[in-house]
Amino acid sequence: MKILVINAGSSSLKYQLYDMKDESVLASGRVERIGMDSSIVTHEPADKPEVRDVQEILDHVTAVKRVIDLLVSPQHGVIGAMTDIDAVGHRVVHGGETFKESVLVNAEVKLEIRNLFDLAPLHNPAHMMGINAVEANLPGVPQAVVFDTAFHQTMPDVAYLYPIPKVLYRRHKIRRYGFHGTSHNYVSEQAAKVLEQPLESLKMITCHIGNGASCTAILGGKSVDTSMGLTPLEGLMMGTRSGDLDPAIVPFTMNKEDLTLSEVNSMLNKHSGLLAISGVSSDMREIVEGMEDGDKNSKLAFDMYTYRLRKYIGSYAAAMNGVDTLVFTAGVGENSVALRKAVCDGLTFLGLRLDDELNAQRSKQARVISAPGSAVRVLVVPTNEELIIARDTYRLSAAAAETAAGE
Amino acid sequence: MKILVINAGSSSLKYQLYDMKDESVLASGRVERIGMDSSIVTHEPADKPEVRDVQEILDHVTAVKRVIDLLVSPQHGVIGAMTDIDAVGHRVVHGGETFKESVLVNAEVKLEIRNLFDLAPLHNPAHMMGINAVEANLPGVPQAVVFDTAFHQTMPDVAYLYPIPKVLYRRHKIRRYGFHGTSHNYVSEQAAKVLEQPLESLKMITCHIGNGASCTAILGGKSVDTSMGLTPLEGLMMGTRSGDLDPAIVPFTMNKEDLTLSEVNSMLNKHSGLLAISGVSSDMREIVEGMEDGDKNSKLAFDMYTYRLRKYIGSYAAAMNGVDTLVFTAGVGENSVALRKAVCDGLTFLGLRLDDELNAQRSKQARVISAPGSAVRVLVVPTNEELIIARDTYRLSAAAAETAAGE
Repeated sequence: MKILVINAGSSSLKYQLYDMKDESVLASGRVERIGMDSSIVTHEPADKPEVRDVQEILDHVTAVKRVIDLLVSPQHGVIGAMTDIDAVGHRVVHGGETFKESVLVNAEVKLEIRNLFDLAPLHNPAHMMGINAVEANLPGVPQAVVFDTAFHQTMPDVAYLYPIPKVLYRRHKIRRYGFHGTSHNYVSEQAAKVLEQPLESLKMITCHIGNGASCTAILGGKSVDTSMGLTPLEGLMMGTRSGDLDPAIVPFTMNKEDLTLSEVNSMLNKHSGLLAISGVSSDMREIVEGMEDGDKNSKLAFDMYTYRLRKYIGSYAAAMNGVDTLVFTAGVGENSVALRKAVCDGLTFLGLRLDDELNAQRSKQARVISAPGSAVRVLVVPTNEELIIARDTYRLSAAAAETAAGE
Repeated sequence: MKILVINAGSSSLKYQLYDMKDESVLASGRVERIGMDSSIVTHEPADKPEVRDVQEILDHVTAVKRVIDLLVSPQHGVIGAMTDIDAVGHRVVHGGETFKESVLVNAEVKLEIRNLFDLAPLHNPAHMMGINAVEANLPGVPQAVVFDTAFHQTMPDVAYLYPIPKVLYRRHKIRRYGFHGTSHNYVSEQAAKVLEQPLESLKMITCHIGNGASCTAILGGKSVDTSMGLTPLEGLMMGTRSGDLDPAIVPFTMNKEDLTLSEVNSMLNKHSGLLAISGVSSDMREIVEGMEDGDKNSKLAFDMYTYRLRKYIGSYAAAMNGVDTLVFTAGVGENSVALRKAVCDGLTFLGLRLDDELNAQRSKQARVISAPGSAVRVLVVPTNEELIIARDTYRLSAAAAETAAGE
């Protein structure tokens, strides 16, 4: 069974083709600058040289067609015919309160995703273009949608409601949704496996620290709180996002600087975070380099970033009345030895003891990096959101095929 | 030495007259509805019946004159002549980065307070009217100003800076200031006295929970972080304020509901918090009553309020890598047995053990309410912001008099 995983943006489309026999990636790639006359296609088959070309790709339908052509091409391809693609899985950012888990696409699901355009105006319409483009190119092939928000739908009202007039929840569905759910879910399961303990027995905090960053309190395997909110702006300081702020700063700044709603959104999402404080970069690697070179602003950015993350870990320990497992994942979480050390060294009051040698080791494996006897086990777990999308799509489409065969 | 303490609002003026010999209050009272033709004056001498009357008081100068008349009146007064007032102390909400401690008023200080009008447009102009009104009525009498923000000026940059473009700090002084500083400072000193331990040795979290609410991480006697920010909106859920939110909710709501900057400020400051969630009241006493009567919305409001406070305590424990002392103060903090229990019962992971009987006892005394052996000592400490203003004013004016005498 072969599963094509697609992450469609408004002008880009990333893909991986999985062979579910061994969960290997047969090919991956991306189409960039869709809608322009010089779109860039990059295709990386597992066992053949990378292909990269520039051509006119004016919409997502053409982009998907181009991807399929490459996948079946005698020269660059990895499958014999497009009928070898058994199902397609899509990443969808916002599932609102409607989607508590991954589902197969049908007319009703499409309508519901459309109803959520308001909550994710930049992402969901692009995902819908991806779904429609696959439908046009691969009619009859089952498609699944996997939501960034779904894992967090177990949060209790005390965590997901904001203390603002209730009419805003009723009328506009303003509440905490949380994101990176696919990743938080996956790494929590992996961590339990590494520890050889049932996930249900653990009080876990997972830190997905990439360019975007969020952490989640996971009690007995269920998300009970998470740092991103209505949008991915809330919570931790990120590469270019501010994270938490005095909400009054928004109107204060709009007034002082005469900003529009869109300008203030852009300021907080694209020109804040590490980038604003360091004045150097939104990339943690460059921040750490700057810090090591004695750059004061890089040091300040690093310190603010880790301080805010440490405070979130403390607050989620309080939310669960304890924590026994702390997981770092995603680009920064998996790779920044300095970040993990800075965060953990300030948490010894929890009985947490990092093993500096284990922390410094490079590995692609999920592993424990706390010292033996540490009251909080600290792990690094590589995340793999595409694989989870492939697995969910495989599971859903296989079950549907079975049901159909049984009828 | 007699000290008059004044808290001037835009249409109100509260006062207390202290005899610093024994720190007793000789009289207290308030003028309300200043600027209207039916202002209400309430005067409470310590040993005489309360006076209350309605009259035209069109400005703060007349209000202060009326207060002095009452203080020296043969029938209702407590002092022989207005020359018995040795000094006047004012509460000032915002001292910006200029004022790190209380100071005597002079032309330069007045100019600096005026420069901070932008940061506290509702409060500082009113305080200035109070200062000028005293100057007009009691020329030559020394005046001191005591700032809500001053105690928090010890915060490190990692805590007071926001991860937003630095130009906003340079140009508009947008940063965390924190408020209730006089109270956090006072109760931290009182708690150390009760514990008979040097304040310098403690990792303390003080929770000032009134209609407004904030908590502060106090390391070795110094504020290192606090929940209120640029304005008193940030941080804990409060009576009518939201506290922390996804900052993106502000532009999202402005767009959906077509709100102006002033309307969204008003929504978040006056129509949120306990009031919005309970639909009943902004007063914790009524929330607890509603909850005990089985009202689900009151229960939800209580749970959100205590959950968010508990998370802040956890985050400040992480900020200091530990906490050994937790202090509750102000109206709700001093009086709500249910609130303290709900917060503390979820913090046993810190080794904190509340003594339910001690917690339930009513007292006006500063006292410990944790069980013997609790790793975190929990205290209730009644706050007294007016007394601290009187003390600071006494100290500053006495020192100035000594210097003048020595010259």
